[in-house]
Amino acid sequence: MNLAALLTSAGINIAVCVILFSLYSVLRKQPCNVNVYFGRTVSITKRRSDPFCLERFVPSASWLVKAWRTREDDLLAVGGLDSVVFIRMVIFSLRIFSIAAVICVFIVLPVNYHGQTTNHPGIPEESLEVFTILNVQEGSKWLWTHCLALYIITASACILLYFEYKHITRLRLAYITGSSLSPSHFTLVVRAIPWSPEESYSDSVRKFFTKYHASSYLSHQMVYRVGKVQKLMSNAGRMCKILRDVSVEQTHTPDLFHCGMCGGATDSLKILATDSESVKGKSSLIDNSLGGRKKVCAAAFVFFKTRYAAVVTSKVLQSSNPMHWVTDMAPEPNDVYWSNLWIPYGQLWIRKIATLLATIAFMLVFLIPVTFVQGMTALKSLEKKFPALRGLLKKKFMSQVITGYLPSVVLILAFYVVPPVMMLFSTVEGWISRSQRKKSACFKVLYFTIWNVFFVNVFTGSVISQLSVFSSVKDIPGQLANAVPAQAKFFMTYVLSSGWASLACELMQIYPLLCNYIRRFILLKEGYNDTLSFPYHTEIPRVLLFGFIGFTCSILVPLILPFLLVYFVLAYFIYRNQILNVYIAEYESGGQFWPMIHNTVIISLLMMQIIALGVFGLRRTPIASGFTIPLLIFTLLFNEYCRQQFKPVFKNHVAEILIDMDQKDEQSGRMEEAYQQLHSAYCQAPITPDDSCSSGGSTRHEGDIVPDPENAKPPGEEPSQINPSWNVTFDGAESRKI
Amino acid sequence: MNLAALLTSAGINIAVCVILFSLYSVLRKQPCNVNVYFGRTVSITKRRSDPFCLERFVPSASWLVKAWRTREDDLLAVGGLDSVVFIRMVIFSLRIFSIAAVICVFIVLPVNYHGQTTNHPGIPEESLEVFTILNVQEGSKWLWTHCLALYIITASACILLYFEYKHITRLRLAYITGSSLSPSHFTLVVRAIPWSPEESYSDSVRKFFTKYHASSYLSHQMVYRVGKVQKLMSNAGRMCKILRDVSVEQTHTPDLFHCGMCGGATDSLKILATDSESVKGKSSLIDNSLGGRKKVCAAAFVFFKTRYAAVVTSKVLQSSNPMHWVTDMAPEPNDVYWSNLWIPYGQLWIRKIATLLATIAFMLVFLIPVTFVQGMTALKSLEKKFPALRGLLKKKFMSQVITGYLPSVVLILAFYVVPPVMMLFSTVEGWISRSQRKKSACFKVLYFTIWNVFFVNVFTGSVISQLSVFSSVKDIPGQLANAVPAQAKFFMTYVLSSGWASLACELMQIYPLLCNYIRRFILLKEGYNDTLSFPYHTEIPRVLLFGFIGFTCSILVPLILPFLLVYFVLAYFIYRNQILNVYIAEYESGGQFWPMIHNTVIISLLMMQIIALGVFGLRRTPIASGFTIPLLIFTLLFNEYCRQQFKPVFKNHVAEILIDMDQKDEQSGRMEEAYQQLHSAYCQAPITPDDSCSSGGSTRHEGDIVPDPENAKPPGEEPSQINPSWNVTFDGAESRKI
Repeated sequence: MNLAALLTSAGINIAVCVILFSLYSVLRKQPCNVNVYFGRTVSITKRRSDPFCLERFVPSASWLVKAWRTREDDLLAVGGLDSVVFIRMVIFSLRIFSIAAVICVFIVLPVNYHGQTTNHPGIPEESLEVFTILNVQEGSKWLWTHCLALYIITASACILLYFEYKHITRLRLAYITGSSLSPSHFTLVVRAIPWSPEESYSDSVRKFFTKYHASSYLSHQMVYRVGKVQKLMSNAGRMCKILRDVSVEQTHTPDLFHCGMCGGATDSLKILATDSESVKGKSSLIDNSLGGRKKVCAAAFVFFKTRYAAVVTSKVLQSSNPMHWVTDMAPEPNDVYWSNLWIPYGQLWIRKIATLLATIAFMLVFLIPVTFVQGMTALKSLEKKFPALRGLLKKKFMSQVITGYLPSVVLILAFYVVPPVMMLFSTVEGWISRSQRKKSACFKVLYFTIWNVFFVNVFTGSVISQLSVFSSVKDIPGQLANAVPAQAKFFMTYVLSSGWASLACELMQIYPLLCNYIRRFILLKEGYNDTLSFPYHTEIPRVLLFGFIGFTCSILVPLILPFLLVYFVLAYFIYRNQILNVYIAEYESGGQFWPMIHNTVIISLLMMQIIALGVFGLRRTPIASGFTIPLLIFTLLFNEYCRQQFKPVFKNHVAEILIDMDQKDEQSGRMEEAYQQLHSAYCQAPITPDDSCSSGGSTRHEGDIVPDPENAKPPGEEPSQINPSWNVTFDGAESRKI
Repeated sequence: MNLAALLTSAGINIAVCVILFSLYSVLRKQPCNVNVYFGRTVSITKRRSDPFCLERFVPSASWLVKAWRTREDDLLAVGGLDSVVFIRMVIFSLRIFSIAAVICVFIVLPVNYHGQTTNHPGIPEESLEVFTILNVQEGSKWLWTHCLALYIITASACILLYFEYKHITRLRLAYITGSSLSPSHFTLVVRAIPWSPEESYSDSVRKFFTKYHASSYLSHQMVYRVGKVQKLMSNAGRMCKILRDVSVEQTHTPDLFHCGMCGGATDSLKILATDSESVKGKSSLIDNSLGGRKKVCAAAFVFFKTRYAAVVTSKVLQSSNPMHWVTDMAPEPNDVYWSNLWIPYGQLWIRKIATLLATIAFMLVFLIPVTFVQGMTALKSLEKKFPALRGLLKKKFMSQVITGYLPSVVLILAFYVVPPVMMLFSTVEGWISRSQRKKSACFKVLYFTIWNVFFVNVFTGSVISQLSVFSSVKDIPGQLANAVPAQAKFFMTYVLSSGWASLACELMQIYPLLCNYIRRFILLKEGYNDTLSFPYHTEIPRVLLFGFIGFTCSILVPLILPFLLVYFVLAYFIYRNQILNVYIAEYESGGQFWPMIHNTVIISLLMMQIIALGVFGLRRTPIASGFTIPLLIFTLLFNEYCRQQFKPVFKNHVAEILIDMDQKDEQSGRMEEAYQQLHSAYCQAPITPDDSCSSGGSTRHEGDIVPDPENAKPPGEEPSQINPSWNVTFDGAESRKI
């Protein structure tokens, strides 16, 4: 592949991006797409559709301007701390790669270019290898520039990282102080309540906490597990509701479907609907009679009088049997993942191990598409596999497209499978909050992506078996130093195709857009009205992967940096736009993603240094190798310093702050208000049955509604009292709301 | 080496052991050795010397009987929980290796013996290899017996481990409940108190805790750092005291030393003594004038009103800057390692990393003596190195002694360096309690020993460079499976010499015995009167190392098991005897050693299985290999289960228990008593200057006595008030008291 092929690839991608961006700027002005592109705004204020005018069909850049002008405070107010953390990650990448690009393009690139090859055929015809470190002679003195660049990049990255971490720590503290009456601060989740034949779980909890935490215990609320009968019942109810909706609409507006093939079906559907209605009418009776069957779980929310008491109780080991009375701070009410609260605590460690093994197995199975992709970059092997294509592949343009563009596309498509699978694994792991589940999925996707995109690609290109590489530890730097520049063209096209195109797809929201059109113009319904929460578990790994590629390639293949820089600039605008307009911040982790981001950047830096070590070793400049080792040690020490200095704030609640908040609230008398909120905050069923069926955009999905069989007392003091009329389950409406 | 050579080695060792044991049984009856062999009893009740009688010179086994008859409760009362944990470890080893010995000697050994070699020359002339797995044919069906033995040993080990862990957890809980008024339960160590120019550290502490923990805060006590002037002064004072003692005794009892060469010296010593006396007289004046120079450290002991409040405060993050106000539960007063309290908290993480690196470096440097030892077992290379010895080495007996005995002796001697070095590393690490320091040293010594005795020996015997082995991960099982049986003779002689002899040395207490004789008969002083605390950091690694060797060799070299069994039987008696008579339990960790012991046993089991995997691979029995993998997984799961089930009790205080204790004490009115004790418990200077100089057997060594420059208030409420007359440092009297 030469520079011309690369530019072809870049040209295709730039064209695609420009078209898509223009299309977006038009589509977003159409009133029918308002639910797709302004999901967040719509969910807050119902926008009226604008009158028809020509301006609606002229592409414009107003969204870019708006995204640019938004300040961090507004972003914080709109998207929560997590979105700010995300944008800070993009800004950090932007900054560090600007520095790296300046240094590498103006210092390292000329050194590479004027290395071994002396007679250059003219820049467009130049092979890409000429721009990589492979072109530098062994023992060349000019390798010092690479070492210098390494130092500058590492130092700037550490300085920037330090200030980002500091800034985000401050934001997190402000976030905690700001969410002043958040019920989660007063609440614990108690799991593994020991079962006793004499008393109910609820009585056990009351007894335990009045005995040991009498001064701070306020009240509690049990968690209920929905029995199979309820589940079936509610599913049937939901089903009939949907079917009735469809059939009602179809009778109102006869159309192709109705006239053609569904006419007969509608009648039977109607019968079904009536049947299920009558069943539904009786369901409350059955519910009451089967009340005893609804299982109380060995888990409860316990409310405390002060924030400090809650934190403190969550931190200590309650019982001499560590598998009983396990306490944890409760997630925010919106953040609770109810069905995982039902999992017996004793299973969790097994589940963790099982998911770990499953993740590793999945990683290895995934080698198949990756190897296939790698095969495509080697055109000759493709010709062997598909002899019919030989004629086509002989054409220059086609071969450029195939080697330059298709592999990444295959990889991208294959990668669409990964986030849902990882999310499933994280669900099975048993996290009780949706933000933790997402964080765990993010972690899995991240390392999965780095492994499968970077390492496997690097090593299938150069060595046959990946695992055999890792069996010989000390050769790894050398192997990497050889393999990474050799795979330069793959990484560049990956940035061009996967990077830029994924941003364009993100902006276009292709899947919701299609859903919207199908619902609106084919099903003739109200249109797409799901609000989405930001998919951190797919987007953070993607941005970090490009950071990883950037760091590891910066010195070896400096030509990649301009493309990366474009990616980060686009990412900056697009993600800001999406946070402002599309995604809704239902729940958030409070900046918990940052330590993971920080660690990944550190790993990228270390990887860069290890590869440089390999390069200097191969190029026989032992002194430059010697200078790289202190850098490695410095990076590790810096990481450890940050871990000491900032990490605890992300893992623990700060006593000082909570006590201050407690004291302030007690003085101002707002404590009573907080207690009032607690009573209704953690409700397994906050919506009435009919609402739950009709409102597709509801913010709660896993909330299974069950009456409390135990508490037959009058409502008031006991928050575990749930209205027995709420008895319909709303389940499985998740699709992309993960 | 054949069986006869092994039996020679065993014979030598048995003879040495019998002689030493008999000698011990005589020596212990001599009144002059009472301080050596009954240090613990003497320190409690001053025993009178028995009248002279013949019985004193007849060897007897009464000590064995006494050690056998002691119950665990008595041991607990005498030696504390740590000693019980130690003995439980020995009992566990005894049990599991009894099972292993029965299975391996009666099932595996005959299979090995009747393997490849068909014409046996008669058992004494048999090479040791005939008894190892190397004698089994490839693909032999009899390898199933090895697999079966593996299953039985693993299963029994896990069952025994489970019950031991359960038992020790119960003991630990009883230990906490039992130490009812222990001041450490009410006390926190606060470090990294932020410095402010307006107020002193003491005021900062008072302000912080009255603001945030007003309801539970009782009082506090600052930690002081001894300035250089004080240190010099007190050292001078101590020196002069010692010199005066010596000179006084010498004038009283003129002897060889006095008449011969020290006569002139004594006079000058007297002058020195008088000089320093006058200096000492002035020292209090200087002390007062220099009072301001004695540095208050950024650390304090903070006392709380209840145990629960103290635990809770230690668990939460106090400040939004995690490097400020770091709280931890205080160690027992006897357990405090004062000089490490002075270390600025911010240094600790650097120190931890530095010691880690130093430990690794030390491990690598230590390869030199180990390689030398390994060279000795290969007799021919020794002949090359020392041609003069050739004649001697030709003799059969000598060669048997050298290959069978000397290598281990060299190794043992070299290993005498390790524990003090590791203890030094642990001191530098900055642990604030002596038990934690010992535990950390124990951990270091353990992995150092396993690495240097097992891995390095195994691989120098078979491969040239150790590190190159570990660069190829997947070959390790196979390499081990080849190398371990090849080193069978080394391990057997190591058990015989290092194992048995070290026990005999432990029993004889050679170093204190020599000191005693030198002091008593040459210096003509009172005799050895240092009380020792049990050297867990040398003894636990030793016993665990033999366990490790036992597990890894059990299937490959079953002949080692009878020797090991003898070792553990002897260990059982000897350590019980020593705990009962010699060592004093000044401070203890409360069973904290057990999780480490448990982990090491698990690692040993895993190692055994990995080696078996290699063996089955080499011997081409893939099904047996297949059966080993579930065993590996089962062992890991078992370990994880134990970690979940028991470990938290060792890491945390149990709220339930502490609150119960608080409530009971409050009801019985004993709380006031506890508060009274707190005032004097954590005193940096519990002894008056003269005491500190004369009492060699004092329990406090690092206690540097400093007056409190800040608190000029009358004594009473403030426990930070220290009597200003205590101003002499007592330092460096540690020798073996680590």
